[in-house]
Amino acid sequence: MKAAIFLGKGKIEVQDVPDPAIQNPGDAIVKVTYTCICGSDLWWYRGLLPRENGPIGHEFMGIVEEIGEGVKNVNVGDLVVAPFLISDGTCPECQVGITSSCRNVQRWGSEGNDAGQGEKVRVPLADGTLFVIPRNDKTGQIMPALLPLSDVLCTGHHAAICAEVGNGSTVLVIGDGAVGLCAVAASKRLGASRIFLGSTHPDRAEVGKKFGATDVIEARGEEAIQQVKVKTDNLGVDCVLECVGTAESWETAFGAVRDGGNIGAVGLPYEIPDIPISKIFWRNIGIKGGPAPAAHYIPELMPDVISGKLNVSAVFTMTVSLSDIAKGYEAMDQRRAIKVLVRP
Amino acid sequence: MKAAIFLGKGKIEVQDVPDPAIQNPGDAIVKVTYTCICGSDLWWYRGLLPRENGPIGHEFMGIVEEIGEGVKNVNVGDLVVAPFLISDGTCPECQVGITSSCRNVQRWGSEGNDAGQGEKVRVPLADGTLFVIPRNDKTGQIMPALLPLSDVLCTGHHAAICAEVGNGSTVLVIGDGAVGLCAVAASKRLGASRIFLGSTHPDRAEVGKKFGATDVIEARGEEAIQQVKVKTDNLGVDCVLECVGTAESWETAFGAVRDGGNIGAVGLPYEIPDIPISKIFWRNIGIKGGPAPAAHYIPELMPDVISGKLNVSAVFTMTVSLSDIAKGYEAMDQRRAIKVLVRP
Repeated sequence: MKAAIFLGKGKIEVQDVPDPAIQNPGDAIVKVTYTCICGSDLWWYRGLLPRENGPIGHEFMGIVEEIGEGVKNVNVGDLVVAPFLISDGTCPECQVGITSSCRNVQRWGSEGNDAGQGEKVRVPLADGTLFVIPRNDKTGQIMPALLPLSDVLCTGHHAAICAEVGNGSTVLVIGDGAVGLCAVAASKRLGASRIFLGSTHPDRAEVGKKFGATDVIEARGEEAIQQVKVKTDNLGVDCVLECVGTAESWETAFGAVRDGGNIGAVGLPYEIPDIPISKIFWRNIGIKGGPAPAAHYIPELMPDVISGKLNVSAVFTMTVSLSDIAKGYEAMDQRRAIKVLVRP
Repeated sequence: MKAAIFLGKGKIEVQDVPDPAIQNPGDAIVKVTYTCICGSDLWWYRGLLPRENGPIGHEFMGIVEEIGEGVKNVNVGDLVVAPFLISDGTCPECQVGITSSCRNVQRWGSEGNDAGQGEKVRVPLADGTLFVIPRNDKTGQIMPALLPLSDVLCTGHHAAICAEVGNGSTVLVIGDGAVGLCAVAASKRLGASRIFLGSTHPDRAEVGKKFGATDVIEARGEEAIQQVKVKTDNLGVDCVLECVGTAESWETAFGAVRDGGNIGAVGLPYEIPDIPISKIFWRNIGIKGGPAPAAHYIPELMPDVISGKLNVSAVFTMTVSLSDIAKGYEAMDQRRAIKVLVRP
């Protein structure tokens, strides 16, 4: 089969690799129908974080081709989507819903595992990791709306859950990448009454408005904080969804959140200064966030995606074939595409 | 009238001071029926934090003697309780419930204000600050159960709210002082299924059990963490209520909370190291806490206190007259009393 292989900074190549085979009773083999490129893949592509050479990609959906003898929850022929982390679904952490901390967590493209950006994937711990998509007449059309369940939609939703977005909440989303835009959609779904989106890119702001942003803040840092304050009776917002992960974006979060409000953080933290307790304590600011427990959220979110109520497929502004995936990386690296859909 | 006056480290004296009088249309004069000594008063008493000499005490209840012409919510003769902070109840912060960040916040015994440990108190912003206690046959008996609404009960409840204690939660309360014990009672009220209380003082542990603690952890630090882990399938607890505020207690909190769980912090933070984001991010640990918005919680909690469902009067293990208040400070300083009730 063909699969994208990471070969160091700036280099992705599609190579012929052996077809995957069942190795353990809990494995399944999935033939990929759609995969995509994640903003976090760019960390390695840009050489910002180290990664061993090898298969890459952690978002995919497809058809189950084969299952190991221990697999109970999926069958051959099922249409499935997989979260960006492999989890067993049975350990105490999974049982309480924090599947990203599964005791048997594994990563795609790591320790001998296949990755998402290829024609087929061997899925370990398939019962905990694969989620069956019920099919109907429209399933074919909404596949690009289902794929974000594997990461960005669940991650945006996680930011909103961590910041306790609920009915009537005022929200600031920091970050207009795919995760930030999904955080807008998730906030709207959870009942937010006002959603500010920080964005200096008109095309991304447009998608944000489509997803539910009521106000676009075309500024960063102190200026963004002031614009939010002016529009909230100098109070700040109930919830900040931090979808960037830089020192500047965190400062904006602290400045824009109201006393007693919450920062939900999903941007991979990169050189963020340590937080003095006094900075959050006297203002009663809550902080929570991390890798989304996507496997926990998929069952809740999927029905709304299938019904069409939650459709974030507009984050895919470019589609390439697997053989052209390097062009997709280039486009995302150069910010010509928000997120790139890949068809094997 | 007589009032307790702080005169520097280790020195509290009851002095004759002028009776309070209405100064602003929003003021009320309250004749104190009960007041008490707070663990946080000991910070000054022990010389750990600076404080100007003068009236002291921020917890009291009493009868309204006089109201300014602008006061609408309380009447002469009303039995009332006041929170530990003075707030207006009308600013945007108060309106969203974070009354501890009121734009017009004032402190008892500061900037010319009376304090709670005296015979009478001028209450500024009375409409936002005083809460009427509906009287019935038993009101006289349950006054010591109502007084903790001014601080420790609301603060314990705040820890539980910040840690998102709910139905079926597993909880660890760190701190067996009055606030920690109230945090136990608040957790039980909110539906926690298992409540661990860290305590090495049998008398306090006994009160904790009475309030709902299911397990007493007679250890601190790493040993306490291990005991909690053993009893939770090596998972840790959903919620840690941090009611101490030292570097050691915070380390215990990080160690005992499960991934995806929450730390609700109300212990005044004292020399706590800054928190690296990485310490909370990869485990999805939530942190929230600070001064409790008591004025926001009192209306919710008071009915349960009046009905007898929520009675934390057992935190008062000693009662003194106002003239003997110095003995109460000594007893709390020497840990001979959990909390001291004072009758003017």
